[in-house]
Amino acid sequence: MLEALTFLHESDRLKGILRKTRTIHEDRLENSAEHSWHLCLMAITLAPMAAHPVNLERVLKMLILHDIVEIDAGDCLAYDEVGRKAKQALEVQAAERIFGLLPEDQAREFRELWDEFESQATPEALFCAALDRAQPVLANLATGGHAWVEHGVTYEQVVARNQFIGQVIPQLWDHISAGLEKGRESGYFGVSAKHDPRRGQ
Amino acid sequence: MLEALTFLHESDRLKGILRKTRTIHEDRLENSAEHSWHLCLMAITLAPMAAHPVNLERVLKMLILHDIVEIDAGDCLAYDEVGRKAKQALEVQAAERIFGLLPEDQAREFRELWDEFESQATPEALFCAALDRAQPVLANLATGGHAWVEHGVTYEQVVARNQFIGQVIPQLWDHISAGLEKGRESGYFGVSAKHDPRRGQ
Repeated sequence: MLEALTFLHESDRLKGILRKTRTIHEDRLENSAEHSWHLCLMAITLAPMAAHPVNLERVLKMLILHDIVEIDAGDCLAYDEVGRKAKQALEVQAAERIFGLLPEDQAREFRELWDEFESQATPEALFCAALDRAQPVLANLATGGHAWVEHGVTYEQVVARNQFIGQVIPQLWDHISAGLEKGRESGYFGVSAKHDPRRGQ
Repeated sequence: MLEALTFLHESDRLKGILRKTRTIHEDRLENSAEHSWHLCLMAITLAPMAAHPVNLERVLKMLILHDIVEIDAGDCLAYDEVGRKAKQALEVQAAERIFGLLPEDQAREFRELWDEFESQATPEALFCAALDRAQPVLANLATGGHAWVEHGVTYEQVVARNQFIGQVIPQLWDHISAGLEKGRESGYFGVSAKHDPRRGQ
């Protein structure tokens, strides 16, 4: 029990990890804990629309755990390819340390779920990845492309990185795709495709 | 799809509902969205220690949904009996409005899960209730009884309201119970048993 409570106490730090995206209804950055809850809510709401059936319990476990490594590794802009690669080694170390607070069997179970999420190799992991990508896109569409403008992210980058959502939850991508088209006309994106997104951070 | 997205957009407001408890590692009040995530993490971590086996998928669905009514009804101190009763009618109206944004079948499913959570009548609902009570107690034990001192909540009130945890997750209550005893010696509680907790809010 003590190991479990140490893990839960340490995990509280996820509430202090700020993402690049803003919450929809308040003027502040979202943190990774409330983001993880929102993905869980998306999962139970959108699961009936998944192109391939998913095991919802495994999906939820992955979503609950997927960002805990950010306690050590921090968040990184989705369009910052260099930053995301540099973060990978840090995230593996974080998984070792944080899941390692738990008894061995449970540490292994949670690590395997995180590895599965990262692999994007199962229908469940792909469904989680689609939600993880779609959530900040929806928040940006609802806030005038706030983070895209701030970090100079272009329409083309957003489409390239997110269009796989169409294979996982087709109706969701149809909606997002139409929103991106509209946002393009309304100045929701960064101005130059050559812009290095890390500059804006 | 549009109804689901309207529901998910509206639910983002839960990130702005502040609770009475503080986060452990930062000097601020916790919001109900990150609290809901933390309960989900507790559920997957502590489920093996439940006195009665639970269906984890249903537990997680209930925890994800359980506080959404606070978007309209707000949060209320756990020890404020009068305030909690007054909130009940508001919460039912909130459930009607917010789950009612969804297509009929899904609105009914989510409403039934919320009703089950509120009823505390199934092993799953009791497990959720135990986590929902334990999480702020653990946060208070980790922050010198911050909210208990602030709102004049006594040791006796905390024991009376939370001791049922011992029937649901016995080891968790053993740990909490020992922590409360220690906290009693360290001034973690309000000074008078006669104090009206609403006065402090």
